[in-house]
Amino acid sequence: MIGEKEGAGVDYLAEERAGAQFDLHSMKLFLAGGQHAYDVSKRMADLVANDPVFAKEDRVRVPRKEHYKNSLRKAGHAWKTILEQGLTEEESMKLRGFIDEPTYTELHWGMFIPALKGQATEEQQHKWLPKAYKMAIIGCYAQTELGHGSNVQGLETTATFDASTDEFVLHSPTLTSTKWWPGGLGKASTHALVYARLITDSQDYGVHAFIVQIRSLEDHTPLPNVTVGDIGVKFGNGGYNSMDNGLLRFDHVRIPRENMLMKLATVTKEGKYIRSNKPRQLGYGAMVFVRQGIVTDASIYLSRAVTIAVRYSAIRRQFGAKDDKPEVQVIDYRTQQYRLFPLLATVYAYRIVGFWMKWLYADVTERLNNNDFSTLPEVHSCTAGLKSMTTAITADGIEECRKLCGGHGYLCASGLPELYAVYVPACTYEGDNNILLLQVARFLLKTLAQAGSGTKPVGTAAYLGNIQHLTSVNCKVSRGEDWLNPSVMLEAFEARAARMAVGCGMRVAKAPDSESAFNELSPELVEAAQAHCQLIVVSKFIEQVQKDIPGEGVKQQLEVLCNLYALSLLTAHSGDFLATGYLTSRQVSLAKDQQKALFSAVRPNAVALVDAFDHTDNYLGSDLGRYDGDVYTHLYKNAWKDPLNESVVTEGYHDYLRPVLKQQLWGPASKL
Amino acid sequence: MIGEKEGAGVDYLAEERAGAQFDLHSMKLFLAGGQHAYDVSKRMADLVANDPVFAKEDRVRVPRKEHYKNSLRKAGHAWKTILEQGLTEEESMKLRGFIDEPTYTELHWGMFIPALKGQATEEQQHKWLPKAYKMAIIGCYAQTELGHGSNVQGLETTATFDASTDEFVLHSPTLTSTKWWPGGLGKASTHALVYARLITDSQDYGVHAFIVQIRSLEDHTPLPNVTVGDIGVKFGNGGYNSMDNGLLRFDHVRIPRENMLMKLATVTKEGKYIRSNKPRQLGYGAMVFVRQGIVTDASIYLSRAVTIAVRYSAIRRQFGAKDDKPEVQVIDYRTQQYRLFPLLATVYAYRIVGFWMKWLYADVTERLNNNDFSTLPEVHSCTAGLKSMTTAITADGIEECRKLCGGHGYLCASGLPELYAVYVPACTYEGDNNILLLQVARFLLKTLAQAGSGTKPVGTAAYLGNIQHLTSVNCKVSRGEDWLNPSVMLEAFEARAARMAVGCGMRVAKAPDSESAFNELSPELVEAAQAHCQLIVVSKFIEQVQKDIPGEGVKQQLEVLCNLYALSLLTAHSGDFLATGYLTSRQVSLAKDQQKALFSAVRPNAVALVDAFDHTDNYLGSDLGRYDGDVYTHLYKNAWKDPLNESVVTEGYHDYLRPVLKQQLWGPASKL
Repeated sequence: MIGEKEGAGVDYLAEERAGAQFDLHSMKLFLAGGQHAYDVSKRMADLVANDPVFAKEDRVRVPRKEHYKNSLRKAGHAWKTILEQGLTEEESMKLRGFIDEPTYTELHWGMFIPALKGQATEEQQHKWLPKAYKMAIIGCYAQTELGHGSNVQGLETTATFDASTDEFVLHSPTLTSTKWWPGGLGKASTHALVYARLITDSQDYGVHAFIVQIRSLEDHTPLPNVTVGDIGVKFGNGGYNSMDNGLLRFDHVRIPRENMLMKLATVTKEGKYIRSNKPRQLGYGAMVFVRQGIVTDASIYLSRAVTIAVRYSAIRRQFGAKDDKPEVQVIDYRTQQYRLFPLLATVYAYRIVGFWMKWLYADVTERLNNNDFSTLPEVHSCTAGLKSMTTAITADGIEECRKLCGGHGYLCASGLPELYAVYVPACTYEGDNNILLLQVARFLLKTLAQAGSGTKPVGTAAYLGNIQHLTSVNCKVSRGEDWLNPSVMLEAFEARAARMAVGCGMRVAKAPDSESAFNELSPELVEAAQAHCQLIVVSKFIEQVQKDIPGEGVKQQLEVLCNLYALSLLTAHSGDFLATGYLTSRQVSLAKDQQKALFSAVRPNAVALVDAFDHTDNYLGSDLGRYDGDVYTHLYKNAWKDPLNESVVTEGYHDYLRPVLKQQLWGPASKL
Repeated sequence: MIGEKEGAGVDYLAEERAGAQFDLHSMKLFLAGGQHAYDVSKRMADLVANDPVFAKEDRVRVPRKEHYKNSLRKAGHAWKTILEQGLTEEESMKLRGFIDEPTYTELHWGMFIPALKGQATEEQQHKWLPKAYKMAIIGCYAQTELGHGSNVQGLETTATFDASTDEFVLHSPTLTSTKWWPGGLGKASTHALVYARLITDSQDYGVHAFIVQIRSLEDHTPLPNVTVGDIGVKFGNGGYNSMDNGLLRFDHVRIPRENMLMKLATVTKEGKYIRSNKPRQLGYGAMVFVRQGIVTDASIYLSRAVTIAVRYSAIRRQFGAKDDKPEVQVIDYRTQQYRLFPLLATVYAYRIVGFWMKWLYADVTERLNNNDFSTLPEVHSCTAGLKSMTTAITADGIEECRKLCGGHGYLCASGLPELYAVYVPACTYEGDNNILLLQVARFLLKTLAQAGSGTKPVGTAAYLGNIQHLTSVNCKVSRGEDWLNPSVMLEAFEARAARMAVGCGMRVAKAPDSESAFNELSPELVEAAQAHCQLIVVSKFIEQVQKDIPGEGVKQQLEVLCNLYALSLLTAHSGDFLATGYLTSRQVSLAKDQQKALFSAVRPNAVALVDAFDHTDNYLGSDLGRYDGDVYTHLYKNAWKDPLNESVVTEGYHDYLRPVLKQQLWGPASKL
């Protein structure tokens, strides 16, 4: 019985592990993306797990101020460790990831420095980057404002050039122009990369970036006429509250002219605005890189939730006790499998798409170096769609895993509430998910129009060159097993995506005002964009499992997961497939039956398939998701650490409970 | 511009309000359920809003211990207010609701006392109820255990009768038998209603209820051999963390025999177990009452989220600025309407279902008094399904509203993170939502089987008596407006629900082992149950709008919302309607077009339709959802209250930031 044995050597999931039908280590290597990446991850994960400074168990229990101070300590200690051990950039990134607590360093390394590299001239880089690299300055990325998020062109902060002093004057003209949300801004940063409207000679040249020092390098006090602070508590106990998302206002703050980032445009001493002739598309490479990271992160975050839910579902038993046998493992219920196993398959799918996006990044970088911009619209749309889809599904998937853990998933000790709270902003930052999908939809309509006039669609949109076939063909499935044929599956997703896009395209084309037709049809356009993105993931998964993959049984497991992933999407969105006339209801029904057969194939491997993610107990931070399955012992033990349990008789008893129990609510001593 | 004016008299939503096409006050009365209920709510809401003891703005910022102490203070003050002002039971319940912070009093009044009333003999009630009514004892409801949730029959705690002392011995034989989750148990309660296996003469008679004192009435220390404490931090900052959900273990704790609740079964002095001849179904009335409350609460919680999201969507502007005109209000985008307006309609739908359930409760009570148990299976299934559906949709809907508020929805200042965190347990308590849906599915299969052998289905299942027609008829819709015909709509939902149930029923009937077929088919059964529940809500909404409803334009608004509610379900679940062959894809497409026409009808009334919920700013607790729309001013002002802003230079600067900036990471003074 769970909880009877405890400590090293206990493994309540041993039987589950023994039943796995594939080589675990090979799968770990596959998921890590090879031996080198595996080694780095393992080393950094262990380094964090074994250093008490990085302990994270109390973060939901301490007040925010202490939580924030702890995160500063961890960030500083991480930096010290990086220098001490001479870690590479790759190792440093992994290290920060495993510490698993958002801090100012993320924005410094992830936004401030890359933006300098992308938008500063070489001279400017020479001036600023060495300081930034040794963290003699701490930078943040100050774009969004209280009243302005996704629409960068709507920003109100102004940077007005004063030729008389060769300075820009930064100013926040309205309440809504207050910079709002930048991470690391609230309490930590010394410098901000401020996006503001460039005004010279009374003309507004739109939004540009400026380096602005906001705090003293001596005593960290805000500089004169700079108002800066934290924007307040966010979703979750720990969650993102270790980050000092900040607000910032300028009251005519002056900075030297050369603090404008001038790679793409300059202002001369005389106040003349000159746009450089460097192609603006050069920035796209960085965007692909960032989005590739987001998709891989989605897979990692979802894998943590799925690990917890799968292990706990194998431990938890409920109903169905018979003849002295214990109750049934929750993971054996079809309703549980129906919600959980598709998410398990999704983790694998997104990991594989992440690998592919690494290739895409390399490809686009090479093209940009050769001034080949031909694939950019497709790459832009594809990465926008994948960012949107993977983050949205991951956020919802984490919460679904929490629900799959029943009541105990609601305890912070499960690790799941915080995982959701800390992850869900990914749906908003780096491009709001809904707006990104509308961008994908615009691309699809444009591609269809161009295909109509003879331009061949490329890359992930290539199937749109095959419209005639895809809008006339019918699905060939007549038995459940037919759904396991990769070309059958691919055609289904291509036909559905193509038909949805064409359906929208025809309606927009017919409308007198295409812009208002676009708004009118936007719910359908979003759905068409989603269908397109799902197709991309399904096709990349299918491509992957058609290659050789080393390790006993590894390829077979991936095939099962690939089919499960695709069929789960298909049955969940059966309305699309039916409405476009590609599938019959009988074919949908066969898909559902086949899906259940795949559940049964996954079941004996489920625990091993999450073990393959190779998360340390420290990184998971979950009593429910422990490797050893000793769930109840640790839930019980850790409950006693709650501050409320510090005293046997609760604080407040004498003032607020005793007067109730003793009917002494009135009188001079009453505090009620 | 927002934020230019502030204070009393400012109304940035005035224009929105002026455009409404119905009488607001009449709508308020309708939603409240009449003048009396409206008056009580208004009085209690204002009482709470105007009493500084009930202020709630700092609850996300204080540490848990302080948060808990504050909640004890509020609970005590509420009790004092109730006595002082001589509030009725109805008023007291409303008062506690508006305080909007879960505490031990909820369980005392909502579970402990009702359980005593339902399961204690008159003599026992006479002994315990007076003490409970004056709160001389505080009770909680200790059923679930660390290893056992929904399956009450699996509980492990034992109550072994010892005839030699005429006592029961309460014991927790295993770790997993630890009582876990009961609200009010952790730190506040003096007594617990403990569910334990009754053992007498070495025989196990299953789970029964016992009153057990757990803390001293003198000094509140736990009684000997009782281990009791809080189970730890839960999802959210404030959220449910004001509640001391507790753990409880017994080490052979003795209680008098008469502490067993003996209405339905007794144990004699000699240890003989005697089941009473009172029908067990009598408890069903209470269950209907509780579930009616849950459905009404769902409507209230969702209405709070929708109020915030609608008002903020009318204030927030983004993209589309043209010719010096400001950006477009977010509420004017179809993508926003597509996600937001169906939730608005859902609030109205659930409110109306709540009204109907009040009638159902009265009806079932009268029947039980007349020993008429004929409608109980249908009532049980219907209330189980409605509890499950409304809580699940409300939880997801709150989170959807949060997402609809963009980045700012992620701030606790929006009120939405806490609203979600505090609401989502409703999906688990009082019956886990998934298990409830499977109960509905079982009822549907049974009803179909009985209908086949001539028993006429009743109440909300009556349509299953019409299977022949519903499985053969086709939808008559040929133009979009046809969807506005109530009988067309009703038939669509009946046909789809009937066909899904019949489809499952035939497969289970054909299977050799119907129990394993049930598990195998459970995902489809859950979907069939959901279709059935959606039909109930749609049909009750349609019934309501066919009656006379006073107030200019009120009935028209309700008709629009009714159609929107139904069509939104229909388009979201179009796969069901298509797969069952009832609808063609053209009819689905017409439904989508009609849905958009309804969005346009809702749009000018949206703000007034949420004003009709009549929430005070205090109760909403949201900077985004303020009545006056002065969003940005208050976001900005309230940010400064964050603990991190108490000092200009952050705590931790000298120890953890300065060493980084100054490259002083090593040396004797380093704390890194």
